[in-house]
Amino acid sequence: MSAVYGGVEGGGTHSKAVLVSAEGDILAETDGPCTNHWLVGVDNCISGINEMVQSAKIKAGLDPDTPICSLGMSLSGGEQKAAIQKLIDDMHERYPKLSQSYFITTDAIGAMATASDYGGIVVISGTGSNCKLVNPDGTQIGCGGWGHMMGDEGSAYWISHLAVKTVFDARDNLVTSPHDITYVKKAMEDYFQVSDLMGMLPHLYRNFQKSHFAGFCRKLAEGGNAGDALCQHVFREAGKVLAQHIVAVLPEVHQDLFRGELGLPVLCVGSVWRSWELMKSESVKIGYQAGQI
Amino acid sequence: MSAVYGGVEGGGTHSKAVLVSAEGDILAETDGPCTNHWLVGVDNCISGINEMVQSAKIKAGLDPDTPICSLGMSLSGGEQKAAIQKLIDDMHERYPKLSQSYFITTDAIGAMATASDYGGIVVISGTGSNCKLVNPDGTQIGCGGWGHMMGDEGSAYWISHLAVKTVFDARDNLVTSPHDITYVKKAMEDYFQVSDLMGMLPHLYRNFQKSHFAGFCRKLAEGGNAGDALCQHVFREAGKVLAQHIVAVLPEVHQDLFRGELGLPVLCVGSVWRSWELMKSESVKIGYQAGQI
Repeated sequence: MSAVYGGVEGGGTHSKAVLVSAEGDILAETDGPCTNHWLVGVDNCISGINEMVQSAKIKAGLDPDTPICSLGMSLSGGEQKAAIQKLIDDMHERYPKLSQSYFITTDAIGAMATASDYGGIVVISGTGSNCKLVNPDGTQIGCGGWGHMMGDEGSAYWISHLAVKTVFDARDNLVTSPHDITYVKKAMEDYFQVSDLMGMLPHLYRNFQKSHFAGFCRKLAEGGNAGDALCQHVFREAGKVLAQHIVAVLPEVHQDLFRGELGLPVLCVGSVWRSWELMKSESVKIGYQAGQI
Repeated sequence: MSAVYGGVEGGGTHSKAVLVSAEGDILAETDGPCTNHWLVGVDNCISGINEMVQSAKIKAGLDPDTPICSLGMSLSGGEQKAAIQKLIDDMHERYPKLSQSYFITTDAIGAMATASDYGGIVVISGTGSNCKLVNPDGTQIGCGGWGHMMGDEGSAYWISHLAVKTVFDARDNLVTSPHDITYVKKAMEDYFQVSDLMGMLPHLYRNFQKSHFAGFCRKLAEGGNAGDALCQHVFREAGKVLAQHIVAVLPEVHQDLFRGELGLPVLCVGSVWRSWELMKSESVKIGYQAGQI
């Protein structure tokens, strides 16, 4: 086999793999499930990656028993050094026919490398969220990216959780909802197939799946676009907190990054950004305030 | 065997079992682990209960193969009807020698039944938190009790989480901490045996144990008692939000409950209340404001 290289883009809900020739031609592409090892465990993460790449080899007419030259992966959850090393060690051991060498970085850095050689700020809002500043000298400053137990602010999970929590708090008389909860409560009951709040407990504990919980965000976007005030509110809040991530790394931005034709490059990655129309009023306000500092 | 009755008090960290004779004499007491089925799963929950009660039978000199008359359990997480029925069905099937019949209620209702025949408000703050109003006619109104994914405000888990999140947000420059984080950061590194924030990820995901995470609260109480301002802050916040739980159910309190010698009975259960001195300023303020409404 002539030199073949592979790449994986790993997300909290879906993942993608690609094989390219030494000349840069795309040989095959495949899709796969969540490959965030914090969410699905190391075993599921690497078996998912192996299946995607092996399928791609077959699709490209290559021998699946011959390892490719190297596999580069930009993974949601691919940050902690010890955890990354374990993933690579386990891939070498369990799948010796997969690839000769491996490289793992985070989804944020992978996206930035795709968009620019020079750096900028990348803000991911998909299943989870993350923000990274990459300066022209390659140094990185992060904000967020700690997962749903310690943040994920502005992500689809966070937006879904905020909407559901608003319904719980209103029912409990603990916090008054800023808007009528009727649409969100009904949408929640439909999406999670429950008839009361108690029914939500299995979705939060025993059968918790972050990607499924986060998927409720799509229904909230539909509600927001149809004019529901509470749906619009949770997206505005997401816009606000995502903008605050950018503001958090601003003091570390290298001067040169402001000198491009369009000013500071901010790369927005992830499906929540499809609802930018619902988010932008608060985002722009935060950006404007930060500009005044 | 003459009639023997059993009781289990199940918590998110520890549980207790007791056997009593028909005359009400305590025959034996035993301790066990967390029996919240949302946290440990149904199998671990009922095997934990079986072990505690079977040990108590042996300790009391009873035949472990003879079922007791009935076993009453007040369990953290013992609320959702379908889930309770599954616990009881599984106990009948898997442990036919345990007890002839079963009754399960929540830890909140169990505590209230122990303290009063007449009702009142019970506020639990242990590993998790919960608030229930029991009116003299037996009707119940709840606030909270949805577990760490949907609240648990004011609990040991929540206090620990708030302190850790404050450290993360300060490091990220996302939210400025109201007080110096030095003590809390050091205490966190010591308690969780980590050297940086990345090291916290296994404690939040792969190896997450709510009771262990919540156990960090004890270190925060020590810090608060030693004068650390951020530790004192998180306990004041807990005092505030627990008081808000009481305020939430106030509109439903039956008039008769205000007529007791000491006014409205509020029963505080759980180890977080040992730090009442750190919490009370905000609690009392909220209570005072509610009284003015």
